[in-house]
Amino acid sequence: MNTRIDFLEKRINEELGKVLVNEEPRSLFDPPVYVFSLGGKRIRPILTLMVADLFEKDIEDAINPALAIEIFHNFSLLHDDLMDKANLRRGSETVHKKWSANTAILSGDAMVIEAYKYISKVPHRYLPELLEVFSDTAMDICIGQQLDMDFEQRMDVTEDEYLNMIRLKTAVLIGCSLKLGAIVSDASAEDINALYQFGINLGLAFQLKDDLLDVFGDFKTFGKKPGGDILSNKKTYLLIKALKSSNEKQKAELDKWLTAEVFDPEHKINAVKNIYEELKLSDLVENLIEKYYLASLEYLSSISVSDARKNSLLNLSEQLMYREK
Amino acid sequence: MNTRIDFLEKRINEELGKVLVNEEPRSLFDPPVYVFSLGGKRIRPILTLMVADLFEKDIEDAINPALAIEIFHNFSLLHDDLMDKANLRRGSETVHKKWSANTAILSGDAMVIEAYKYISKVPHRYLPELLEVFSDTAMDICIGQQLDMDFEQRMDVTEDEYLNMIRLKTAVLIGCSLKLGAIVSDASAEDINALYQFGINLGLAFQLKDDLLDVFGDFKTFGKKPGGDILSNKKTYLLIKALKSSNEKQKAELDKWLTAEVFDPEHKINAVKNIYEELKLSDLVENLIEKYYLASLEYLSSISVSDARKNSLLNLSEQLMYREK
Repeated sequence: MNTRIDFLEKRINEELGKVLVNEEPRSLFDPPVYVFSLGGKRIRPILTLMVADLFEKDIEDAINPALAIEIFHNFSLLHDDLMDKANLRRGSETVHKKWSANTAILSGDAMVIEAYKYISKVPHRYLPELLEVFSDTAMDICIGQQLDMDFEQRMDVTEDEYLNMIRLKTAVLIGCSLKLGAIVSDASAEDINALYQFGINLGLAFQLKDDLLDVFGDFKTFGKKPGGDILSNKKTYLLIKALKSSNEKQKAELDKWLTAEVFDPEHKINAVKNIYEELKLSDLVENLIEKYYLASLEYLSSISVSDARKNSLLNLSEQLMYREK
Repeated sequence: MNTRIDFLEKRINEELGKVLVNEEPRSLFDPPVYVFSLGGKRIRPILTLMVADLFEKDIEDAINPALAIEIFHNFSLLHDDLMDKANLRRGSETVHKKWSANTAILSGDAMVIEAYKYISKVPHRYLPELLEVFSDTAMDICIGQQLDMDFEQRMDVTEDEYLNMIRLKTAVLIGCSLKLGAIVSDASAEDINALYQFGINLGLAFQLKDDLLDVFGDFKTFGKKPGGDILSNKKTYLLIKALKSSNEKQKAELDKWLTAEVFDPEHKINAVKNIYEELKLSDLVENLIEKYYLASLEYLSSISVSDARKNSLLNLSEQLMYREK
């Protein structure tokens, strides 16, 4: 349908298919190649290339930063999956399951370095700024993951703390994808910033949508079993809100499931989901998503190019917001 | 005694003492601060600063690359200790023991990014070259660690394979320390290369010396219990040589200890050490160390500054070669 997005995705996959395929030893580099082969929506690098389109630049000038982003994103999934002891990613075995924990650690490390190598492949005049944005983002993502893990041990996580965590863990990389594209397109400081804020707000909406799909998504369309967050007591916005706004009976029920050590997974998922439904949390989160989405569109509209040129970004944003997977 | 080396070490420790101390969350950044506080000889960053001295430049212009090197070095020890399941580092608990495996993974990741942040803190004209050398070195170190792990599963590792592995795992970072110092000191391409080769050869000699000390070192002076490599069947140059040059009886004895699943540690260490002694491997390795050391000095002497200016580097090299710990 949207042939430009399809074209950009194909271009990314073409280049990603060449990353680390010919390096030795294969024991170190087969895992990243495997991870890249599992696919994914490639949203982040597509966004980088779309910004080049936005400013009527050659997408080839943005391809290396785009690849750096995707390589780093896949590294962070790889190490996160190891830390979360997740068995599956995109329907396939995770690296630490297929190989070993040590392989996952070291191959992940190599991917971070490879990402920096792609960042370095830009004309020198862009390097200092690109590098600063990239490193700051990479560090933010580590901080976000640490907060996510810290929150597992806490029952008093606030909504603001949660929103800050997903901003760091998810939204900044979306923002960074756009920003890198803007920098290598010689955009103005105002446009660079507007694109970054567009990305941050889109990223927040995107992650909240993900949280919703994890509970209310359809197995077949979503591609993974819903309820994972509930089973692992993940302090999502839904759970934080539920703990805060539940009545005594609901609160007792929630506490029971949160502390239960032995339980039937389906039972737990249904019980917690029921409470979310009683509290109409789905509507509440949808409203929050809408708020961030509208904010993102405000930033997009402020960018100093014609509306027509913004259509691709607008279409992709819509797809992300109204997706069922 | 050598007040200049002491001064450089103090300067490194002063700056290293500021790294990540004020960042949040502490759950992510306490581990690197802890690792830095455990000390170490700081050989690598001292080498970087010494190169600034060599070319009569201000050491402050080399301090950020020096710190990047030391931060990356400590990251690689942290992840290696986790992969090797080591309990102690410099006499103190390793990060995964003191905190957890997940903390070790994520804090290590954050240290890689922090290292890149320090690399970025140089005048822009040096950035492309510095970044390329640093990333290539970082990747080499990952490859070296992977080969080291791969060798654990193999009985047919050759001497050349071993020497290549320690070149990647250890020597290139020594070479890189010197090279980064040379780049920010505006050294000529010939001098940059000579310093790099000086470092590679010094690094090979250094690691072989380490292997020797691990077997023949004195507990009190060496600071850690000797025999660790023997207990873990590490394919060191000593073991590779022993497997190759042993007679039938010695070979059978070695095989017995290499495959033994239950054994008295002292017994195994003494038995293997005896074979090394019978085969006079200590002399053989000392000769190899001498060969690399002399090669390193050749490169040092080729550098286009007065001999007097090379004294500090010469002294430090000697200290490293004739150390007992």
